[in-house]
Amino acid sequence: MNQEKQQDRKRVVILGAGYGGVITAQGLSKLANKLHIDITLVNKHNYHQMVTKLHEPAGGHLDGDEVRIPLSKLIDDNVKLVKGVVSRINPEEQKVLLEDQELAYDYLVIGLGSDPEYFGIPGLKENSYPLRSLNAARLIKVQIESCLAKYKTDECKDGLLNFVIGGAGFTGVELAGELGEWLPKVAPKYDVPLDKIRLICAEAAPTVMPGFDEELSKKTAEILQNKGVELKLGVPIKEVTADYVQIGEEQIPSKMVIWTGGVRGNTVLEDSGFSTQRGRANINEKLQSINYDNVFIIGDSSIFLDENGRGLPPTAQIAMQQGEHLVKNLEKYLTGKEMDAFTFVNRGVVASIGPSDAVGMVFGKYRIEGKIAVWMKKVVHYRYLYIFGGLPLVVRGLMGNLPKVNLKENYTTQNG
Amino acid sequence: MNQEKQQDRKRVVILGAGYGGVITAQGLSKLANKLHIDITLVNKHNYHQMVTKLHEPAGGHLDGDEVRIPLSKLIDDNVKLVKGVVSRINPEEQKVLLEDQELAYDYLVIGLGSDPEYFGIPGLKENSYPLRSLNAARLIKVQIESCLAKYKTDECKDGLLNFVIGGAGFTGVELAGELGEWLPKVAPKYDVPLDKIRLICAEAAPTVMPGFDEELSKKTAEILQNKGVELKLGVPIKEVTADYVQIGEEQIPSKMVIWTGGVRGNTVLEDSGFSTQRGRANINEKLQSINYDNVFIIGDSSIFLDENGRGLPPTAQIAMQQGEHLVKNLEKYLTGKEMDAFTFVNRGVVASIGPSDAVGMVFGKYRIEGKIAVWMKKVVHYRYLYIFGGLPLVVRGLMGNLPKVNLKENYTTQNG
Repeated sequence: MNQEKQQDRKRVVILGAGYGGVITAQGLSKLANKLHIDITLVNKHNYHQMVTKLHEPAGGHLDGDEVRIPLSKLIDDNVKLVKGVVSRINPEEQKVLLEDQELAYDYLVIGLGSDPEYFGIPGLKENSYPLRSLNAARLIKVQIESCLAKYKTDECKDGLLNFVIGGAGFTGVELAGELGEWLPKVAPKYDVPLDKIRLICAEAAPTVMPGFDEELSKKTAEILQNKGVELKLGVPIKEVTADYVQIGEEQIPSKMVIWTGGVRGNTVLEDSGFSTQRGRANINEKLQSINYDNVFIIGDSSIFLDENGRGLPPTAQIAMQQGEHLVKNLEKYLTGKEMDAFTFVNRGVVASIGPSDAVGMVFGKYRIEGKIAVWMKKVVHYRYLYIFGGLPLVVRGLMGNLPKVNLKENYTTQNG
Repeated sequence: MNQEKQQDRKRVVILGAGYGGVITAQGLSKLANKLHIDITLVNKHNYHQMVTKLHEPAGGHLDGDEVRIPLSKLIDDNVKLVKGVVSRINPEEQKVLLEDQELAYDYLVIGLGSDPEYFGIPGLKENSYPLRSLNAARLIKVQIESCLAKYKTDECKDGLLNFVIGGAGFTGVELAGELGEWLPKVAPKYDVPLDKIRLICAEAAPTVMPGFDEELSKKTAEILQNKGVELKLGVPIKEVTADYVQIGEEQIPSKMVIWTGGVRGNTVLEDSGFSTQRGRANINEKLQSINYDNVFIIGDSSIFLDENGRGLPPTAQIAMQQGEHLVKNLEKYLTGKEMDAFTFVNRGVVASIGPSDAVGMVFGKYRIEGKIAVWMKKVVHYRYLYIFGGLPLVVRGLMGNLPKVNLKENYTTQNG
């Protein structure tokens, strides 16, 4: 390619290889020549992680390589991969600052996901574990084991066996279900009697999975309680210290609080001057930043208002649909056509509650639970693998043989 | 048995079910009727633990149940088992105080092992992990994994990957060998690059295994270095904090210091008024306390002076030989005969350096290393199983199927 031609090409930079970012990169990759664009995908890790499955490695159920896929296996060679953490976006100068380099763009896609929201609860941020990444999930698992081991050696045992999950939304419920099944398996490895262990799930709202179907929410609470989870509903966490958690009027000694009770948009957006709502950037119906025409923001990083003016929740399903839609819109935008408004098609949700139970609501109105819900959860997972990597990835997923991440993988060699 | 007769029987209480205590209890059990004695064995756990093998579970190599045996499988029903921690001995009143009960004795055998000796090094006790029990070994393993996990999530990573073993005696060397083989296996599970990890073994003496054969000691240092262990010899640990360890003039950031550099007799002996040398009680050549004729002290809890007036080291081999000798001596003592002096027969020593290497000195003069030493280490282990439980235990050991510990086992029901 001669230099003149290269200068004609527009630079599209995609930030984040989450559910939305990967779909966008894959779609644009196929259109790169047609649209005369050079595509760069920036991600903290050299792998995509399945954030919706992180409760499984946290509960010792899945290995790390089962909840991530190397980006080099998902993204074609005509997309330049950059491993780095975005520290700031400068939309005026059309630049993205990473820790050790600067990337200039003509068009920017932001899919940087979310950060935990601590609602200003004293000590919560400093003394709780988030479940936002594979590394965080692994830390939760090993810290629980550390508490079990310390219970047998430390003189002060206060709170070492009280494990508290803050928040009973989808993440909290799925994690509680997972830990409810794992703790009876792992405790004997440390000679810890199960009846000394408390697994508490605290939620400020009066039900688990607030906002979800009432009947299924009740059913979920029942399943969790049968797994030994103590539910504390309608009581807010008021304070967390290194030694205890204050839930409503009750002070519970604990060395291990996992916070799943809230998310906000990735703080980089707010810090970079985008107009945001709880950290999620405001966008128009075409997924375009309301501040900058050449910036598109999808997934948890933005807040999309539906026809009733309500913000869509931060879910993988929405991020993926937005990624698909954005590819079409960018094609139109870059060829001077009118972009379409995004509409979310709710395909339903399924929450797993431990490896062997689940509840869900599908096709907008059908409640499912038990085996059929567990099966549906698998369908959702394989559908995701299909979208990401076609039949080959589904087959590898079914065989428990997803491509392994090579941490030393050097992008510059492979992807130029 | 009528009450009068029962009152004639003398009460023998054995404290500690370590290498010496178990042998003593087993031997006396066979003589109980002949000697008209009631035997009680007191131990902190309801299992005997193989303290010499604890480096293996610490390095993720063996499961807990492979380094312990339920006492109920080792000790006959005519020995009363008591699970408890000895808090004080009152030799004047012939009583032993446990946390929740008091035991009266006519004859006492003390085999309470040793405690770590910290030599007054500032911060060492508070900020280091001992390797003195299965529970402690499990904690070491999980804390190392915790450091690896935190390295991927914590903002401050200082010292998280510097693992320091204080002391290069047998325990330190065996642990270093084990960790040297385990770390390359476990680090990838947390995506931690091996070249960022330091495994340091610091010893104040100028060689590893001070006092051992010079040639083998050199060989051992070589093997350890080949496994990536950094040896710091001839430099004392001067201070340990939660964040660093001061080795000689060098300050090394570390969150994980394991102390194997010294032992002293169980502090209960000193606290109970026995005359001691570095916590090890003074005894005569018949293994009898120099303070109380009806108290016998064996293993690490006492210091036995050889013909040259030098104290024997605290080893399992010596404890077992003393246990065997004590049974004979007690039989004589209780039947009014003269007791014999104990003499130690050195059968040699073998140190394993990771699962696949070892060095040793056998029959007093033959150096062994490599495969033959690994094989000899196994012979030593199976010999120990044979002494403890005869051929059945050897067979179960060979099959990797040692009896499992049931933590709920209730002695009072079983052993009356």
